[in-house]
Amino acid sequence: MYSGLAKGLNDAVGDFGIRAVVLTASGDHFTAGNDIVDFMDNPPTSDDSEVAQFLAALLNFPKPLIAAVKGNAVGVGTTMLLHCDVVIAGPTAKFSMPFASLGLVPEAGSSYLFPQLVGYQRAARIFMTGESFDTDSAIEMGLVTANDPDPLAHAMRVAEQIAEQPPQAIINTKALLKARNHDSVAAVMKAEFEIFAMALQSEEAMEAFMKFMSKKGK
Amino acid sequence: MYSGLAKGLNDAVGDFGIRAVVLTASGDHFTAGNDIVDFMDNPPTSDDSEVAQFLAALLNFPKPLIAAVKGNAVGVGTTMLLHCDVVIAGPTAKFSMPFASLGLVPEAGSSYLFPQLVGYQRAARIFMTGESFDTDSAIEMGLVTANDPDPLAHAMRVAEQIAEQPPQAIINTKALLKARNHDSVAAVMKAEFEIFAMALQSEEAMEAFMKFMSKKGK
Amino acid sequence: MYSGLAKGLNDAVGDFGIRAVVLTASGDHFTAGNDIVDFMDNPPTSDDSEVAQFLAALLNFPKPLIAAVKGNAVGVGTTMLLHCDVVIAGPTAKFSMPFASLGLVPEAGSSYLFPQLVGYQRAARIFMTGESFDTDSAIEMGLVTANDPDPLAHAMRVAEQIAEQPPQAIINTKALLKARNHDSVAAVMKAEFEIFAMALQSEEAMEAFMKFMSKKGK
Repeated sequence: MYSGLAKGLNDAVGDFGIRAVVLTASGDHFTAGNDIVDFMDNPPTSDDSEVAQFLAALLNFPKPLIAAVKGNAVGVGTTMLLHCDVVIAGPTAKFSMPFASLGLVPEAGSSYLFPQLVGYQRAARIFMTGESFDTDSAIEMGLVTANDPDPLAHAMRVAEQIAEQPPQAIINTKALLKARNHDSVAAVMKAEFEIFAMALQSEEAMEAFMKFMSKKGK
Repeated sequence: MYSGLAKGLNDAVGDFGIRAVVLTASGDHFTAGNDIVDFMDNPPTSDDSEVAQFLAALLNFPKPLIAAVKGNAVGVGTTMLLHCDVVIAGPTAKFSMPFASLGLVPEAGSSYLFPQLVGYQRAARIFMTGESFDTDSAIEMGLVTANDPDPLAHAMRVAEQIAEQPPQAIINTKALLKARNHDSVAAVMKAEFEIFAMALQSEEAMEAFMKFMSKKGK
Repeated sequence: MYSGLAKGLNDAVGDFGIRAVVLTASGDHFTAGNDIVDFMDNPPTSDDSEVAQFLAALLNFPKPLIAAVKGNAVGVGTTMLLHCDVVIAGPTAKFSMPFASLGLVPEAGSSYLFPQLVGYQRAARIFMTGESFDTDSAIEMGLVTANDPDPLAHAMRVAEQIAEQPPQAIINTKALLKARNHDSVAAVMKAEFEIFAMALQSEEAMEAFMKFMSKKGK
């Protein structure tokens, strides 16, 4: 799935007919978060893992990226939104980044981008407690633009509105906006990957995974 | 006008009798935005254009800079506020930065300062759609301090309050606050100027200007 | 007191039994601010003053730091909160950083951290006017998490909630979050100390102190 998303984004870069991309999910939830068993079997690394390819594609995507979210957006489901230009969410959306609760650490540049967006203290509390937040909180934080029961239709309208703008000016505008963070986020992603890989092998992560899976099994 | 403003600011730097400067406009509007025809005839460059002199004067102005805004604040009328210390606006104020809609890119360091102030996602949406925002939104963003039907009187009161403070402490406080961004913003302004100059010569900007002027002519 | 706090924090670093630290005050107020007479007698310097030791301990503290505030939080009483992870305040809390009004400049990295948190314009107004703000404003700014009549009990609950998380993941998460600012804030603290020390010897600070103390004496 990560490499499918990476391929989709990378193909869209070179296609002159594509002026904006909308990311959404079929079904009631945006993402369930990474598969815990898969984490243990295929720990992501910074260089050539499929997760790393997806994150690099996100970080470097030069055209407008719009997300439509409903239901749970767990882990990377929330952190990937930090790389989007416009996020529309429905009233059922629930955002969470429970990395520390699982014995892990923030990823996808979120340890940099989330405190930058919402302030250090808000980010620290959310990362340290693992608590989730809803669409209205996400709007207040500036992460989400609108609460709409049909987030995809709303996202498509925004995408069309942006697609009508002069395309090179949009690409240049995004490049200027991203320039402020690009290199820092790329470096942070590498650091996060290294600490993440070590955390995956820790005893406390193993215990947290067991606890999580026994809770799920109930 | 740009060089007049630059001169006014630069003169105020050396005048010990001046402890704060209030920027405002006579008439019902703050600024109409740069003259489109003038953009084409005198494309701004980073080094010695009058716009560049004005922006350098803004960026480096060491004393408190307070703005009183009513009516339209288009383009540089909004981006210059990002360099002010306190902005008071009236209920008629309407802020817009429709650079991309005109085939251009953000200027005056706004591609750096605006996302820093309001978060990446809010800034991306506003720059990409060209949508305007009102005083209450600008207060929520932290750009504007108060919504007052007489913004100039309010701005003068703030200026007087600040002017009563120990003057060297105020100048040192502002220098410390600006130090965080100063060099980055100077570098960003240069990058914006270069991309702006190229954009001015693009076909899509030409088309956008024509569309804009035919709409205005109606 | 500064060196007592520094010692307390530094001891907590090495104690495996301590997973989070709560900072609070006995009595009705959090801090009265630094003693003005002490400022003049023992001007703080960046290297080995007790203030510098306390600030270094704050900046480098690797475990969750939670503050419970009621009453006045003057000067360093507010700026130290910028280094905390979670701040709970009561309805009586009143935050102020009247450095410029005293002829001084922001300290404890606040000239960097406060505009980063609340935006340049809000920070400039608060530093330049010396105005105080209450708990609800501090929540809106993202500095404070909750307004609770019993801030200490609330802070203890948050501390316990965080202490139940996998401890190494919490320390690594905090390290990643702090990495964004750590070196910049350390450098800013040094710059602030230098300007602060010069300001302490200025005539305008002397006058401001006299005015402040004659007001207090009334």
